[in-house]
Amino acid sequence: MTDGRTVTLQDVQDAAARIGPVVHRTPVLCSRTLDELVGAEVFVKCENLQRAGAFKFRGAYNAVSRLSAGQLAKGVVAYSSGNHAQAVALAARELGTTAVIVMPEDAPRSKVEATMGYGARVVTYDRYTGDRIALGEALAAEHGLTLVPPYDHPHVIAGQGTATLELIEETGDLDALLVPVGGGGLAAGSAVAATGLLPGIRVIGVEPEAGDDTKRSLEAGRRITVPVPRTIADGQAVAAPGELTFPINQRLLDDITLVDDEQIRDAMRFAFERLKTVVEPSGASGLAALLTGRIDPLPRRIGVILSGGNVGAERFAEIVQG
Amino acid sequence: MTDGRTVTLQDVQDAAARIGPVVHRTPVLCSRTLDELVGAEVFVKCENLQRAGAFKFRGAYNAVSRLSAGQLAKGVVAYSSGNHAQAVALAARELGTTAVIVMPEDAPRSKVEATMGYGARVVTYDRYTGDRIALGEALAAEHGLTLVPPYDHPHVIAGQGTATLELIEETGDLDALLVPVGGGGLAAGSAVAATGLLPGIRVIGVEPEAGDDTKRSLEAGRRITVPVPRTIADGQAVAAPGELTFPINQRLLDDITLVDDEQIRDAMRFAFERLKTVVEPSGASGLAALLTGRIDPLPRRIGVILSGGNVGAERFAEIVQG
Repeated sequence: MTDGRTVTLQDVQDAAARIGPVVHRTPVLCSRTLDELVGAEVFVKCENLQRAGAFKFRGAYNAVSRLSAGQLAKGVVAYSSGNHAQAVALAARELGTTAVIVMPEDAPRSKVEATMGYGARVVTYDRYTGDRIALGEALAAEHGLTLVPPYDHPHVIAGQGTATLELIEETGDLDALLVPVGGGGLAAGSAVAATGLLPGIRVIGVEPEAGDDTKRSLEAGRRITVPVPRTIADGQAVAAPGELTFPINQRLLDDITLVDDEQIRDAMRFAFERLKTVVEPSGASGLAALLTGRIDPLPRRIGVILSGGNVGAERFAEIVQG
Repeated sequence: MTDGRTVTLQDVQDAAARIGPVVHRTPVLCSRTLDELVGAEVFVKCENLQRAGAFKFRGAYNAVSRLSAGQLAKGVVAYSSGNHAQAVALAARELGTTAVIVMPEDAPRSKVEATMGYGARVVTYDRYTGDRIALGEALAAEHGLTLVPPYDHPHVIAGQGTATLELIEETGDLDALLVPVGGGGLAAGSAVAATGLLPGIRVIGVEPEAGDDTKRSLEAGRRITVPVPRTIADGQAVAAPGELTFPINQRLLDDITLVDDEQIRDAMRFAFERLKTVVEPSGASGLAALLTGRIDPLPRRIGVILSGGNVGAERFAEIVQG
């Protein structure tokens, strides 16, 4: 890391070496049906099968594992719409420390329960009126906890990039990579890894239409804040790009594609019926972008990150039934 | 095969060599959550990820691939509640022949569509009043088609056994194997493979409570016919054990465990939420038996076959919502 504010391929490779023994090397799925439908060779990186159900464990473990003994003795705190919560809770447990997680009151029940299941304490706030950052910082100050940000931290970004490192190790050359964008940590880490290994690759971010803050920000050339997005893609319901993630994404993303809730729903259904795999709404947005057929020009060999699979069966039923 | 009526380990190994290039070597899934819940080491063989969505492709391809050029020129016919249909349709397409499939009128829409998607012609009958065997035989006689039975054929049974061959190659020693029982082809093939490789293994069949024909038949010492079972496990809605499968299962199965629809539903939900994988009701019955905690004594290392994943998203939603 040159100035402590950006992330290099070497940082992602260091993260991979550090987290390798504890993360799942998730499978890369291929499907004739998908290839025929899309008209390209598609490689699906199944981070829905990662520990704690999403890519988030990579960044969280990388960040928490670098804390000092003194910091670990006091514990960590995180704010998250869900998957980062479970990731930090599990990383804390694995590293012998404690976690307090600040979650929105309307976070999916399955995510709250899973977070508590990993031994974390959950504190809730109102997604539409509360300030989770202020709450997280207050808890950190009061109890001497170390804040583990969901995306705006070099160790988190580097950790998230390791999924793409694994993907490209397995597939070799790719013409494009589709990656969901929420706060931009996965996108930034993935873009660093992908463009570092394959200089000619197009890295395309995918946002929900209702949460197009990164697309708008890239167009404006500066970070734009949108109203808190109302979308089924709760993991991408972020109002503004990160301070650290945005400059990386500005430099390395080729484009941002938007998908609406109906397209996300169709992608979840496709993953369920044809790939037999469970993807949550945010996790399906990359696949949704591919299935809409709007990636133009169509690359020959495409990587897609299915970023998470934390959706309860009842919630899935509601989503499918529209 | 000694008398053409039974199946040996060598037959299963021959089938494996023959079908190896075209079937998926499906993954064996392990889950800390599942191990902790059950209190044993569990190895889940994911035949829901097999081509055409179920183990059935193994037996169908093994059987169809052995037909003569003359038989292949005329085509094949099969009757099936669903997964064997897709399997024969795909096997026929792969081997350059045509398939006519006899299906119940109330077969899941997704299974009918998938079967036609593989290029087969579908003929329907009423599950509660029709005689699918007579219909299949009439079509065979009229058009010179070769009937590919869903379970009562040595090549079909040997093909189904290859999933267990792969499982044990990967896991080594197992104390028990849980396998869903419908017509008994998967159970018989699995039992031949498992006991052939591991003489001390317990092979436990699992039937839906409403379709306990094999359990009753084992108790009676002869094939018993029950009323056509009404259960969500449509792939196990078989009224009597097979003529060829029954003697094999009588000789090699340790026991039959029954599960009800609610337990199957819970297992499907568990597979969805914790394993992030899609299992159809019949495919989940082995897992359901394990999750009920009624396998006694509890083996230390258990293999479970998730036999199929062909359930539409809407149907899954209905099932989850009870």
